[in-house]
Amino acid sequence: MTTDTDKAQLIGLDWGTSSLRAYLLGPGGRILRENALPLGIMPVRQSMRVSNSDLDRAFQSALDSVIGEWILDYPSLPIVAAGMVGSSHGWKEVPYQNAPFDVRQLGSHVGQLKTSSGMIVHIVPGIVKRFELPNVMRGEEIQILGVWATESGANETEEMLIGLPGTHSKWCFLRGSQIMDFETFMTGELYAVVRQHTILGQTMSGDADGLSPAFDRGVEVAGGTNGLVGILSTMFSVRSFHLVGQLPAEDQAEYLSGLLIGHEIQGVQRWIESKGFSRKCLPQIRLSGGSLLCMRYHRALALSGIDGAVSASNTSAIGLWQVAIQAGLTPTLDASKFERGVAESC
Amino acid sequence: MTTDTDKAQLIGLDWGTSSLRAYLLGPGGRILRENALPLGIMPVRQSMRVSNSDLDRAFQSALDSVIGEWILDYPSLPIVAAGMVGSSHGWKEVPYQNAPFDVRQLGSHVGQLKTSSGMIVHIVPGIVKRFELPNVMRGEEIQILGVWATESGANETEEMLIGLPGTHSKWCFLRGSQIMDFETFMTGELYAVVRQHTILGQTMSGDADGLSPAFDRGVEVAGGTNGLVGILSTMFSVRSFHLVGQLPAEDQAEYLSGLLIGHEIQGVQRWIESKGFSRKCLPQIRLSGGSLLCMRYHRALALSGIDGAVSASNTSAIGLWQVAIQAGLTPTLDASKFERGVAESC
Repeated sequence: MTTDTDKAQLIGLDWGTSSLRAYLLGPGGRILRENALPLGIMPVRQSMRVSNSDLDRAFQSALDSVIGEWILDYPSLPIVAAGMVGSSHGWKEVPYQNAPFDVRQLGSHVGQLKTSSGMIVHIVPGIVKRFELPNVMRGEEIQILGVWATESGANETEEMLIGLPGTHSKWCFLRGSQIMDFETFMTGELYAVVRQHTILGQTMSGDADGLSPAFDRGVEVAGGTNGLVGILSTMFSVRSFHLVGQLPAEDQAEYLSGLLIGHEIQGVQRWIESKGFSRKCLPQIRLSGGSLLCMRYHRALALSGIDGAVSASNTSAIGLWQVAIQAGLTPTLDASKFERGVAESC
Repeated sequence: MTTDTDKAQLIGLDWGTSSLRAYLLGPGGRILRENALPLGIMPVRQSMRVSNSDLDRAFQSALDSVIGEWILDYPSLPIVAAGMVGSSHGWKEVPYQNAPFDVRQLGSHVGQLKTSSGMIVHIVPGIVKRFELPNVMRGEEIQILGVWATESGANETEEMLIGLPGTHSKWCFLRGSQIMDFETFMTGELYAVVRQHTILGQTMSGDADGLSPAFDRGVEVAGGTNGLVGILSTMFSVRSFHLVGQLPAEDQAEYLSGLLIGHEIQGVQRWIESKGFSRKCLPQIRLSGGSLLCMRYHRALALSGIDGAVSASNTSAIGLWQVAIQAGLTPTLDASKFERGVAESC
C-alpha cells in the first residue's frame, strides 16, 4: 500500500457497452489507481446467459474482477458509476434527465443500487433530448461535467462546444453548466463496418492508425465542393481514386477515416451555425477522448479552418468525482485543488 | 421453338459483380427470352479457385449455364456483354472511355474476346470521369444508352438526369447523347451493412420491403433542417427514436431506408444545383432499375418536392441492342420499331 492509496476517497466506474473502467480516486479527484477490463454490459449479459447466472450475480462478478482488490483495502468507499450500466440493458435502469440540463444537478439524480454483497452503487442518469430529432447519451454527461469542472473560469453565459470522439461521437453545446443541445455522429462505427464489410475494404491494406497525407486529403474532400454531395457519394471515391491509380491500398483506410471525420466536422459546423454562430466565430472547443483519436480530430478541425480546439484529459474521472461531491458522498473541496485536465493538445 | 425465337438476332449479357443476366433479343431489340443466374464475376472467380480451373474455362462454363440452350438453337448469333465482365477482374479487360462521352460511340469501343469454344463476345467499355472527384461505371452506360434510345425526342442540347438505383446508385447528367458527368451513391450497400452489422440493426425486426409512413418520415428528416447535419448524425435517430418510444422495431428498417434514400436525393439536388440548375427547375428525370426500388425512389423524390420523374424499363436490353447496331452486328432498324421502354411509373 502506498501513501497515495491511503488517501482513497471514491471509486468511480465508467461502465459502457463493451468495457468497464474503474478509477480509485483520492483528494481532488486525483487518479490513484486505474483498471479496465472488457466487461461492458454486453459481455456481462452474455456471460449471464452462458453460465445461467442471474443479473445481479453476473454484474457483481464483473465488478469484483475490476475493483475486488481495492475493496479489500477500502471496504467502505462510496462507488459512483456512469454509462450503459444505468440503461434498460444495464444493472439498474436510471431514467434519463431531459436536456437542457444543468450538469451541476447530476448528483441529485443518481439511482442507488444495493448489490447482493451489500455494496451500494450510485448510478448516474443519462441525458435525453426530446426536441428536434431526439438524442440520448449515457456516460458522456460525466465527461461533459469533467470538462466543465476543469474550466474553472466558465460562467453562466459562457458557451462551449465539447467534442467527444468515439465509436459514436458526441458533440455537446454547453452554456455555462447547462447542456443545451447535443448531436451524435456514428463516425467510428461506420468506419469499422465500411472497412470490414463493404467493397471499399476489399482493396485496403492496413488500418487508419496514424496521420498521413491521405487522411488530410479525405478531410479536404469532405470540406470542399464535392463534399456538399455528402458521404454516401464521396465514400465511393476510395474506390474510384484506387481504380484510376491515385490511391494505393495502404492509403485507403487513412483516406476513408479523413473523409468520415471531415464530414462529421462539416456536420458539426452546420449544426452550430443553425444556432446563430458563424463559421468564423464559433464557441471555444474542447475535445475529450482517446489521445490518438483526438489527434485526428485536432488535425481535421485545423484543416477545416477551425483553430484553437483544446484537449481536456481525465474528464471521466473528474466528472465522477464531481458527481460524488454533488451527491454528498465525498467531502467538498476547494476548487483550486481540482486536478486540471486541460492541455494544449492531445 | 416459337415463331418469336425464330427471329432471334442477338444475345445480350448484363454481367455484373454478383449476377449474370442474359437476353435473347429479336427485331427492334425485343426481349424474346431472358435468363439470370448468380454467376457474376466474383462467384465465377471463386469457382475457378475451388476447381483449380483456368479463367477462360470458368467464364465459359458460367456463360454456357445461362445461354447454352439458346446457342444450340442459334450457334451464330452475335453476343454483346456489358458490366464488370470487362473489368480487370472480369474475363477480358476493356479500357474505360473518358467522360464526357457520347453513348452513340459505345459500339466503336467494344473489345473482342474469342473464347476457347470459338464464341466471340463483344464487351462494352465502362466510363471513367477524371475531373473533380474521379468516378467510374461499368454496365450502367448500357442503361443510359437504353434510356437515351427510348427518348426518341432527345436532341443534342436536351438535358436529362438519369437515376439508376441499386447497391451503388448512379446518377448521370446527360446532354443530348453525351454523358457529361455522373455520381455514385453507396446507398444500397450502406443500408445492408448498417442493417446487418451496426447497433442500429440489433433492434430492427424485418427489412425495408414496402412503403410505409416510417419510410416517408426518414425521407422528410433527410430533407429537413436536421438533415443538413448529414447522415452520420441523422442515422443515430433510428436508435434515439426507438429509445424514446417513437419508432417500433418493425418500422426501423423502413425509416433507415427512407433516411438513406432521402440523403441521396438531397445530395443529387446539391450536385445538379452546382451545374446551375435551381431546385425548382431541374432537368427531366428518368429512373431505371428494379421496380420495387424505383417505387421507393419515386416516392422519395416526390416527398423531396421533385415531381415528374418517369421510369424507363428494359433499358439494359435496349442498350445492348443499340451497341450491337453501332458495332454493325445487327441490321440497322427504323427508329420507330424500337421497343419503347418509358412508362408513367414503375
